Formats: sequence, C-alpha cells, structure tokens
Amino acid sequence: MSSDRLIYLPLGGAGEIGMNAYVYGYGKPGQERLILVDLGVAFSDMDTSPGVDLIFPDMTWLAERRDQLEAVFITHAHEDHVGAVAQFYEDLGAPVYARAFTANIARRKMEEFGYSEKSVRTVSAWPEVTQAGPFSVGFIPISHSIPESSGLVIDTPAGRVVHSGDFKIDANPVVGEAFDPELWGSLAESGVKALMCDSTNVFNAHEGRSESTLGPDIEALVAGAKGMVVATTFASNVARVRTLAEAADRAGRSVCLLGRAMRRMIEAAVETGVLTSFPKTISPEEVKEIPRENVMLIVTGSQGERRAASAQLAQGKYQGITLKEGDTFLFSSKTIPGNERGVIRIINQFSEMGVDVVDDSDGKYHVSGHANRPDLEALQDLLQPDVVVPMHGEHRHLREHVKLAKEKRRQGILAVNGTMVDLTGKRAEICDYVETGRVYLDGSIKIGALDGIVRDRIRMALNGHVMVNVILDEDDEPLGEPWCEIKGLPEEGRSRAPLVDVLEEDLSQFMGRAGRKTMTDDEKLEEGLRKITRQSAQTEIGKRPEVTVIISRLSA
Amino acid sequence: MSSDRLIYLPLGGAGEIGMNAYVYGYGKPGQERLILVDLGVAFSDMDTSPGVDLIFPDMTWLAERRDQLEAVFITHAHEDHVGAVAQFYEDLGAPVYARAFTANIARRKMEEFGYSEKSVRTVSAWPEVTQAGPFSVGFIPISHSIPESSGLVIDTPAGRVVHSGDFKIDANPVVGEAFDPELWGSLAESGVKALMCDSTNVFNAHEGRSESTLGPDIEALVAGAKGMVVATTFASNVARVRTLAEAADRAGRSVCLLGRAMRRMIEAAVETGVLTSFPKTISPEEVKEIPRENVMLIVTGSQGERRAASAQLAQGKYQGITLKEGDTFLFSSKTIPGNERGVIRIINQFSEMGVDVVDDSDGKYHVSGHANRPDLEALQDLLQPDVVVPMHGEHRHLREHVKLAKEKRRQGILAVNGTMVDLTGKRAEICDYVETGRVYLDGSIKIGALDGIVRDRIRMALNGHVMVNVILDEDDEPLGEPWCEIKGLPEEGRSRAPLVDVLEEDLSQFMGRAGRKTMTDDEKLEEGLRKITRQSAQTEIGKRPEVTVIISRLSA
Repeated sequence: MSSDRLIYLPLGGAGEIGMNAYVYGYGKPGQERLILVDLGVAFSDMDTSPGVDLIFPDMTWLAERRDQLEAVFITHAHEDHVGAVAQFYEDLGAPVYARAFTANIARRKMEEFGYSEKSVRTVSAWPEVTQAGPFSVGFIPISHSIPESSGLVIDTPAGRVVHSGDFKIDANPVVGEAFDPELWGSLAESGVKALMCDSTNVFNAHEGRSESTLGPDIEALVAGAKGMVVATTFASNVARVRTLAEAADRAGRSVCLLGRAMRRMIEAAVETGVLTSFPKTISPEEVKEIPRENVMLIVTGSQGERRAASAQLAQGKYQGITLKEGDTFLFSSKTIPGNERGVIRIINQFSEMGVDVVDDSDGKYHVSGHANRPDLEALQDLLQPDVVVPMHGEHRHLREHVKLAKEKRRQGILAVNGTMVDLTGKRAEICDYVETGRVYLDGSIKIGALDGIVRDRIRMALNGHVMVNVILDEDDEPLGEPWCEIKGLPEEGRSRAPLVDVLEEDLSQFMGRAGRKTMTDDEKLEEGLRKITRQSAQTEIGKRPEVTVIISRLSA
Repeated sequence: MSSDRLIYLPLGGAGEIGMNAYVYGYGKPGQERLILVDLGVAFSDMDTSPGVDLIFPDMTWLAERRDQLEAVFITHAHEDHVGAVAQFYEDLGAPVYARAFTANIARRKMEEFGYSEKSVRTVSAWPEVTQAGPFSVGFIPISHSIPESSGLVIDTPAGRVVHSGDFKIDANPVVGEAFDPELWGSLAESGVKALMCDSTNVFNAHEGRSESTLGPDIEALVAGAKGMVVATTFASNVARVRTLAEAADRAGRSVCLLGRAMRRMIEAAVETGVLTSFPKTISPEEVKEIPRENVMLIVTGSQGERRAASAQLAQGKYQGITLKEGDTFLFSSKTIPGNERGVIRIINQFSEMGVDVVDDSDGKYHVSGHANRPDLEALQDLLQPDVVVPMHGEHRHLREHVKLAKEKRRQGILAVNGTMVDLTGKRAEICDYVETGRVYLDGSIKIGALDGIVRDRIRMALNGHVMVNVILDEDDEPLGEPWCEIKGLPEEGRSRAPLVDVLEEDLSQFMGRAGRKTMTDDEKLEEGLRKITRQSAQTEIGKRPEVTVIISRLSA
C-alpha cells in the first residue's frame, strides 16, 4: 500500500480560461482510481477557430482509462464547467454528481442527447459526502456569480484536498449561500494537503465587492430612466437578474425576460428552490400593450453574441420589440477580453437609434464573480494548505498565483493542462506530462484542433481559393484548356483582364510545355499547376491563394 | 456670390476610429472649391475583413471632383491620418501640405510609389498660411502623441473654421510643442464659426494627464529591474520613446531600437530637428555582447501585431535576441479594443518564459494622446465656436460629444461619414448625404468592401468549401461520376464513410434522376448539384458548406 499515490491532472482550464476539466487519482501508479471535477466548454473565435461551434478539452486520456473512473463532479452550472458533460457522457461512462441547481442544468443537457434523468445524481451540501472509490467528496457552498456554486472537499487516504471551484468571498450574494468563513475554516482542522484554487482575478489588488452593493445604483438608474429600460447580464447570474427585476418592480415597471438562456436559468432556479422570490414577468406580446416607460426587459447577449437578444435588438427587432430614442440600455456586465468588437458594435447601433447606453465603466453596475488577490489570500489563511495549485487561469494568472503562494511561504505549483502532480509526499511534485489538447465541435462532428481542417479554413479566409480543373483523355493529352474558378478573390487584377483568364492562359502555357512525365503523374501535374497558379496570382493580384487542383482522367 | 456656401463632408473617420478624411468646400452648390484634410487608413481584422492588408475610405466622390480639389492637408503623421496619402495621390491629383515631420513621413510613402519629393510640400506653423482657392489654411501646433501635430485654422469668405486634429491639452509633452492656450484663445478674436473636434475620449470624465508625468515611474521601474528590460509603445510616440530611452540611460543601460517603424520614426524625428537629444543606441549585434542587465530594448508591436518585434520575441527570437527568466517586459501603451487577444497571447508567452510583464493596468506607464471630456470643454471655452461638429469617433462618441456641446449651450451637429453640413448660415444645417464606404487593399488590388469577395472568404472560413466537378459529353450525358473535393471540412461524418464518398453517392443519384431539361441547362444543373451537396453535408456533418460547381462540357 505504500506505493499508492495521490495525483492531480488538469486536462482543461489550467493555462486558459474556459473548458475546465480536472482529474484526481489515488492508487498504484498507472492504476489509480480516478474522479473528474468539471467538464466544460470554451468558445470559438474567428481568429483561431472560425466556424467551430464549441471547444472541448481532449478527453482521450481519461476515456482510455474509463475503467478507472469512478465519478464526475460538477462544481457549478457555468458552461465552462458543465457545458461538455453530455458530449462525453458515453465516452466516460461514469455517473455525474452535482447539487440541485447544477444538476437541473446538467440534466437538460443530458436530455438533449437522449440520456435519462438518472445520468445526473443530485447530492446535498457538505457535510454530506459521496464515496467514489478511495475518494470521499463533499460539496461545500461558496459564493460565485451563479446559484449553488461549490468547492469540493476531497478526502483521500493521503489526506485532504480542497478544490475551490470558481468563487468570490461574498457575505451577501443576494441569491444563494453566503461565504461562510467558519465553515471553510473548519476544513483546516484535520489539515489541508493541497488547495486547487481559482486564479482568474489574481491581478486585481482590491478586495472584492459584494453582489449586494449593486442594488442601490441599479435602482437609481432604473428609477431615473424615461423610456423603456433594457438590461443585459449573464443569464446564469440569477442574483443579478433578480436585482435588476426588483429595481424594475420598485420603479413600477413590468419585467420581461428575453432570450432562451434567460428564461431557462430562472426556470431552473425556481424549480430547484434557489430562487424563492422574483417579480411577476410579462410576455413579449404584453410588452407591446403597455407604455414603454412601464417596461423593463432583461435580456441575453451581454458579450455581444450575434444571435442573442441584445444584438438582435441592436439590429432593429427581437420578438417584435424595437427600441427607440429615449430608451436606456444597461450592460450590467463586464466585456470578456476578445469580445470588445461585438459589444462596441451593439453600443454604436444603439447610439444610432438614440438609445442611451450605460456600461460598467465607472464600476457601479457590475461586480466580478471571482476572488481578487486579497480574497485569494484570505482563503489560504483559512485553509492553511501545504501546497497551492493555481487553476482556472491563463499562464500569466497561474504564474502570479504561484508567486502569491510563495509570498505567503507556501509551496506553489504551476501545473498547466497535462501536468500530472503527485501530492502524496510532504512536498508536491510534478511526476508526469500527459498529452492534452482541444477538440472542436464542428456542426455535428468532433474534430481535432490540429487536424488541419480549421487551418485550411483560415487560409481560405486569408488568401482566397482558386480551383483548377483539367481533363485528360485516354492518352494523357489535355481535353480542352485548363479551367479556373475563384472564390474570395478579386475578379480583375493588374492587367485589367479577368483574373481567371490570366490564370488559365498561364496554366495553358504550362500544360503545353509539360512533358509526358508530368502529364502521366497526377502528383507532379498537380504540383506544377498549383505552383503556376500561385505565381500567376502573385503577379496579378499580389496574393498567393489556396489552390485546389482537380484532375479528371477519362478512362479508355 | 450670395449663393456661395461653405460645406463640411467627412468621407472617413466620422462614425469610426480610423481612416480619417474630411472635405471642406466653398463656392456655388455643386461647384465648390474643395480641400481635403487627412487621408488615413484603418486596419483589417479577421472577423470582418480577413486577408485584407489595409482599409481606405472610398474616395470616389472626391476623385470624381478632382478638378474642384485645391489641396490636401495632413494634420499629423499617424497612419489613420496619413496612411493612404500615396495610395490616392494619382486619383486626386492635388498637392499635399504638411509640417516638416509629417511631410517627412508622407514623402517616404510617396517614394514607395515612385512619386517625387515635390508631391509633398512642407509648410511652417501658424501664423504662416497656405492659400488654396478660397481657403486660407494655417497649421496651429497642438499637443498629441506624435511630434508636430497640428490643428488647422481654415479661414473662408464665410468665416473661420477650426479643425482640431487629434489632440490633448498638454503643457509639457516632452517632445514637440506644448498646448498654448493663449495662441489658441487668440483664434477666437475674429470669431470661430465651427469647431470640428476630436471625440475619442469624450467618455473619459477626468482631466487628461501630461506625457511628462510618466518619467519618474518609468525610471523607477527600469532602475529596479534585474535582467534585460524591453519596452513597447507606438513607434510614432517619439516623446515616449525618448522617456523610455532616457530611463535606460540613467539606469546605465544601453538602448537598442527594434522594429522597422521604431527606427524610421526616430530617424524622421532627428532629420526634421524635432528630436534634438536622444541617448546613443546600439545594434542588435552589440546587444549580444554586453550583459543583459545593461540593455534596454525599445520595440514595436504594442498591439500584439503578429509580425512585430514584441510578438517575435514572445515566440522566441527577434534579430537573434531571446528573452529569458528574470527579464522585464513593459507595455507602455494601451490595448486598442479588438486587439486584446493578440496582446494577451504575448503576455502568456512571456509568462511561460518567466519574463515579468508590466502593463498599464495601474495607469503609471501610459497616458492617452487624446483630450478627455474636461479638455474638450476647455477647447470649446477657448474658441467659443458657434457650432461643434464632432469627428474622429465612433457613433457613440460623436453622439456624446454633441450632447456635451449642447450642455455648453452650443449647436452640436452629428455628422457621420457622408453627411454634408452647410456651415454658411447662422446655424449649421445638414444639406446632403453622399455615398461613402470602405475600400480594401487586398494584396496589390483595391477591392470594394461590399464586392462580395471578403464575404465569400468569411463564408469559406465558417462553412468550409466543397468543389463539385461533373463532365458532360457531346450529348449532355455524364461522362463518369460526379467528383467532389473538400477543403476545411472533416474527412468523415456521421456514417463513418469518407465525406466525399457520401457526397458523390448522393450527387450520382441526383444526376441519374435529373431529366434532360436539367442536364442541358448549366444554371439548373449547378443549382441542383449545390442543393444536394448542402443537404447531404447537413445530414452527414451538420454543416451547410459553400459549394462551387464546375461543369465541363466536351464540345463535339
């Protein structure tokens, strides 16, 4: 038994913000019994993953060890923690555990894939624990920007590990459980071996602000507004949605929730008893029947997503509702880096309509759901862990968080995705590296990020695409002239003749010059045609396009 | 003569930040004599303009009236004001006027196109003026983030217009002329009809900070650093570059400038006498020969541009220089919205190397070059214009700036690109709308933003591309089976057979079913093949790709 070890292995979320997936294992090296904490998604962007629907962590390592996997635990219902749970349910073949609200959201995903209700098991908060092989796992409530967020108390034969989950320290989170320092402090009584800790806001030196501080400013804004008021925030921030709705209510405005995610989240919060009071809402049809100064819409799309309610309203209309001069639009949110362009587009569209846009630039209408540096320190102080392993952050966040641990005279370990950490001994040690990566959901198919498919798309977007078509007869002689089609390229270049004519002329000449050795060899011929096409385009339009050559040989 | 009018018409820069181009005219309607102020570029992005090299304002309206155009005036040497000057020199056929430093930069662009030195005429500052038809135009020094920035005093028979150019109010800009309130105030003596005013920072409620305030913090940072220090800022911010270099000098570090733009700007500043003192610099080769704690690099690429020195250093090497653990990298800059991803990528790459990255998050190492709201008010107070016409801003900035003018009991006019404003009478009035737009430089060719070329590229990036090839014989009968090639799509779909096989099978069946009417009609056949391809792909991979159909008919 002395050779048993306790390991930690992030497969996603360490070295990036998104697609969280953390493995813990206990047992003989290579034969550890495993649990997975969280199974989330990341979102695509045009720069690196155009056309991709969702991004998952590569779960191959774990799927290959599914026999060792005891269970999956989901800390909270944000997409970057729960979003891939149904996508890999079959590959992993392990039961999924979560508290009621998270389980409700997870089950909706499972249902879409035809899995039964039982695929997700609802558990209660700590001190209730779930046995999963050598692990005893408890969900300990922690405040965040979604109801029922939990850290995990993971007790093992080698000692106790605390997995913070996403968190902030909030004594009054409006909806859901306040951070309870006494409860968290009590975890330290039997000693904490390691703290795996959220790193998102490690660069923020100020103490975090409570969700409850926003009410007065939001109320004042809504009370003072003239026309219709529209507010957007993350649908999953049920506390914020309630604060917004109550501000409307007090100002004598009826609330209408717009956007599928917004209605679904509130529904889940009510179903699970997380949300006990919420002002009565009205339908989009009812909105049209009452004066606009008596209405407040709470809508999806705070990140400028093109299909969400905010963007649609900015385009002109959503569910028959249009905004106009004198209305107010509130971003009760922060723009995630990378989403600025989409958000600014919306703000300018509203500006063109005469709608006044209020954002969080003076910090009155939004607070973060993540712990700032002093709060990270506070958690360390409460738990007194031997080692801090930063997670949920880009490399820069993890590195800074390690520095913070060291400042506090604790061991800090920088473990990005694929880094296996042995937590068994007095000091934690990196013991292995595992291949990890990203999987893209593209339409209905999972593709590898490095398969070259997305690379080809990016190249077509940057360089345009020329298709070259030649037909050869039974004697390997060209039948007619080579033929070009272009897509994403200018019709005319330097010589003011159609680009396809210029390319075809150069290709014809090449075919005329080509010897029998080239004409009989598809590979050689293709290479020659591609090269000529690119050279010719470079001269004519100053670009070297992607080229697809199609050689048709008529068989005798 | 009483029917003469004074008009203002932005062709670029009003309703966006970038590609500034503002027309003024005086004369009988439709026959006004014209001048152009600034002729800049904007930059492409993957979301909206993949593969595009540069973006210009559409100058068609002005080129069609080149006989009416007297001159082009360039306020300062930022790319969004001078970048397109050579690109349209031939189309516009008018002389270009600028002060020495700006003219130096403009001439370098003209040279690349083979135009003579004389294409750009150097003028001195106000009170010297240039006569251009009915206009008398003076360059009045104003502080900004590049040397020799100027506002324009445009005197016309209908009165005086002041064009602010890009500016801030800085009593000590380190390099170049301080803002001189007395000089600017004197412009009001004969009355100012209209102020066309920079709007970039209208949402910033704080008084602007002087460039000179940065010195001590930058010095402290450099003095305290251990390994090599690298700093990046806009190359054109010569004052900042000098502040950085002097901090190095005081800390006993030799300065090496990296990046073409960095060396070119300093060269231009020295050539034109704008920069009189600058520490001695060393070459990249010399860097390698002295201890790294005695070196400071000042490099291009503050916006994360992939090919610039910063990104290259983050990738591992630039001009033989590599960074390593213990080095410090300073962003003496602000990330322009939309560039966050690129900048964050670099920061994380440096983090992986163990390089400490310092950015401007606490406001110590960068100040903006644009006037904040109180400074905009101060300029209005000095000039007392009858009307304020906001420019250099997105719609939201222009709208807010109009509000500000109205708060100060002045007329404010919101005029986005293409809005012609008649400034002749007591009150300014919108008198016409002109078609405007964007032109893309794509490789060596100018293409219209709405030509569909870039739209096709975006679609290929999002949806992938299928090429379908069919050959018909002299009797319109298929010669062999239809043929597919794919690019940017998964090799296999739902049925686990090659996607091209599935598509070809479905296309074959379609060809078999198709009647003579379809087979003899290219358009019908193409439409049918495209439809089948998209349907088949939707079933197989859940995507509807772009389809190019190539029909080859063998002639008898």
